[in-house]
Amino acid sequence: MSARRRGRRPGSQDTREAILAAARTAFAEGGYDATSVRRIAAAAGVDPALVHHYFTTKEQLFQAAVAFPVDLPTALAGIAEGPVAELGDRLADTFLGAWEHPRTGPALEALLRSALTSQVVGRLVREFFTRHIVRSVGARLADVVPATELPVRAGFVASQLFGLAVVRYLLRFEPIASAPRDSVRRTVGPTLQSYLTGPLEALREPASQ
Amino acid sequence: MSARRRGRRPGSQDTREAILAAARTAFAEGGYDATSVRRIAAAAGVDPALVHHYFTTKEQLFQAAVAFPVDLPTALAGIAEGPVAELGDRLADTFLGAWEHPRTGPALEALLRSALTSQVVGRLVREFFTRHIVRSVGARLADVVPATELPVRAGFVASQLFGLAVVRYLLRFEPIASAPRDSVRRTVGPTLQSYLTGPLEALREPASQ
Repeated sequence: MSARRRGRRPGSQDTREAILAAARTAFAEGGYDATSVRRIAAAAGVDPALVHHYFTTKEQLFQAAVAFPVDLPTALAGIAEGPVAELGDRLADTFLGAWEHPRTGPALEALLRSALTSQVVGRLVREFFTRHIVRSVGARLADVVPATELPVRAGFVASQLFGLAVVRYLLRFEPIASAPRDSVRRTVGPTLQSYLTGPLEALREPASQ
Repeated sequence: MSARRRGRRPGSQDTREAILAAARTAFAEGGYDATSVRRIAAAAGVDPALVHHYFTTKEQLFQAAVAFPVDLPTALAGIAEGPVAELGDRLADTFLGAWEHPRTGPALEALLRSALTSQVVGRLVREFFTRHIVRSVGARLADVVPATELPVRAGFVASQLFGLAVVRYLLRFEPIASAPRDSVRRTVGPTLQSYLTGPLEALREPASQ
């Protein structure tokens, strides 16, 4: 096994870190879909079986590479349940909850700062966020909006959520930083809902603009 | 004159930079209103008259200290003119125009990155933005919404505008990054309008939530 040749023992923290570093670079360069576990293993100098040993699936490897502190697929599955008309409200609630949780909040802040200052992390977060929003929430919207609209809708959702995180948690603008979570949720929820299911000018044909 | 005692000649670039550095620290620590030109001059080791010589007013000194590349008071005065019902649209239009201008765009990107990574710059930008939005756009809203609501409304406006800048210009999420400016304006404009003049849950009494 090439890990042994390079002096790493399977099971060591070094091997795990080497796989994560290779994964970050590979995902950022090639995107999630085009990047195989085999390619990441080769870049890290280990056997693909070892990658699966540590991370089980490509999905879990990706989540670990991003160091994303929330189980986003599970969180988004929860958001996707329930009435479509309340998707925006549930999305805002879950988002605020994760940011205000004592464990995940600081980790999300660190990740957002990295994403804003590192091209590689920025690209990873962008892809991670868009893929999951489009897949989970998008599946829930299948009867409501055309699938082709989902990337644009996810982008505007991201613009409101990222901005909220910047203003409330990073720059700590008052009075938004100290506003009750519930009142922020109820204010931002309708915006998210309109981006998810409302008629968006950004989706109209250029000729009609 | 103390500038001379410290070996600086009035008119030198060093003096101007020393005043700007002192202003940045003083504004970030004390806020705009509580910080006097006299105090900044003392911190920079120069005569207050020299500060006025370089920057004319405290307002212009503040703008220079933030290195804000757009003449925000003038831009906001333009936004404040015209129908109140189109404030959000004009705000989005001016914001996108400044970010996509070949001179001010890169400067705004540099400033936003600094604001997101430096506490001092972050505080300056936060105060600069809130003050001007509240004063210029707020004055225009005097007949429409109570003045006490303006800081909350400005905060939500900031959350959408900062998020749009992050997604479109910093992280360059597609398809938002490549979307026509006009379609982004028309999509985000109604959100800004609702934050400026709409009924916001964040403004309701806690008892009614």
